[in-house]
Amino acid sequence: MHDSGDPLGDLVKLLVRLPGVGEKSARRIAFHMLSADRDYAQTLGEALATLGERVRRCASCGNYTARELCALCADPRRAGDVLCVVARPADADAIERARVFGGRYHVLHALLDPLGGVGPAEFPLVPLMERIAREGIREVILATPPTVEGEATSLYLAEALRSAGVSTSRIASGVPHGGDLEFVDPITLGRALEGRRSL
Amino acid sequence: MHDSGDPLGDLVKLLVRLPGVGEKSARRIAFHMLSADRDYAQTLGEALATLGERVRRCASCGNYTARELCALCADPRRAGDVLCVVARPADADAIERARVFGGRYHVLHALLDPLGGVGPAEFPLVPLMERIAREGIREVILATPPTVEGEATSLYLAEALRSAGVSTSRIASGVPHGGDLEFVDPITLGRALEGRRSL
Repeated sequence: MHDSGDPLGDLVKLLVRLPGVGEKSARRIAFHMLSADRDYAQTLGEALATLGERVRRCASCGNYTARELCALCADPRRAGDVLCVVARPADADAIERARVFGGRYHVLHALLDPLGGVGPAEFPLVPLMERIAREGIREVILATPPTVEGEATSLYLAEALRSAGVSTSRIASGVPHGGDLEFVDPITLGRALEGRRSL
Repeated sequence: MHDSGDPLGDLVKLLVRLPGVGEKSARRIAFHMLSADRDYAQTLGEALATLGERVRRCASCGNYTARELCALCADPRRAGDVLCVVARPADADAIERARVFGGRYHVLHALLDPLGGVGPAEFPLVPLMERIAREGIREVILATPPTVEGEATSLYLAEALRSAGVSTSRIASGVPHGGDLEFVDPITLGRALEGRRSL
C-alpha cells in the first residue's frame, strides 16, 4: 500500500469496504486494533492477507476448502445420492448450521442472469450434470435464493434435471419464523399463501 | 498462526473479537473476503498486521501518529494555549470530527481507577503538568467520559490544575441531541437538570 503517512486513516478507508461496516464501526475497529494486543492485529492481518492462498474450491462440490476435497465431500457419513444446489458457499454454510440436511452440496458460484452477462452459455450447468451422472445422484434440492435470478436458475436447472430423470425439488419460500406478517413484503406473503399446506 | 486446516473458520474466530462484530457479521465478512478481489484482502491484511509498527504516540500529546509529532501538534494554526484532555485517541478523534475545538489535545491513555490498578501513583499526571508548564497552557477542558472513572479523573485533574493556576472546565453532561427523554437513563436526566442553563 502507498504510504500516505496516515496509517489509521488508511485502515479506516479499507475497513468501510467490508459488508456491514460503516464509518463509525470502522473507526472503532481501527482504534481497537491499536489498544488491543499487537499479536492479535498481526494474526488477524496475516489471516486476511493469506486467506486467498490457503482457500480453494472443492474439486467435487465447489465449496471453499483448504484441501482437495471439502470436509463434507470427504465425509462418508453424508448421503451420497442427494445434492443441495446453492449459489454461494455462504448459503451452504447457512444450511449446514441449521443441521437439517444430511446430503452433500453443489455450489454454483453463479446464477442465471442474462442481463448481467450470465446466460445459459456462461452458466456452469455441465459440471453439475457430470457430477450427477458420475456420483449417481438421485435427488436434487434447489436452494438458490428466492430472487429473480435465483428463481430463474431454479427453473432452468429443474428442466435440465427432469430431462436427466433426477427427482428435483425447490426449497419453500414464505413468511420467516418469528416474522411479523405486518412487516412482510407482498411478494413473500403471496408465496406464503401459494405454498400453503393442508393440516 | 497454527494451521488448523480450516482457514475460513479460523478467520471467523478472529473476526468475532472485533468490537461490534458478532458471529453472523464475522461469517459475512469472511465470505466477502473470498469473493472480493484478492488484492483487497491482502492490502487490508497488511494494513492490520503492520499497524502497530507504523503508529506511535505523539511526543507532545500522546495521540496516535505516524510521525514524531501528530498533525494537530505540528499545525501552527491550532491555539497553543488551550488543551482538551481526553482518555483515549478515539475521543480526540470524535471531538475533532465535530469541528468545535480549535486548540490541541492531551491523550491520557488512562483514567483514575484505584480498584482497577490505576491510583494517583500510576496515573500519568506528571507529563500533563510538565506539558502545561512547558507550553504555557492557560486553559484546560476536561473531556474524560461521563463515567465513574471519567468523573474521578476529572475531579482529580481539576484540583491539580487549580493549584497550578490553570483555568479549567468540564464538558457538559446531559440529554444527547435528538434523544428521546423517555429512553434516557435517570443519571443522565439528573445531570441534564443539574446542568440547566437560564434562557
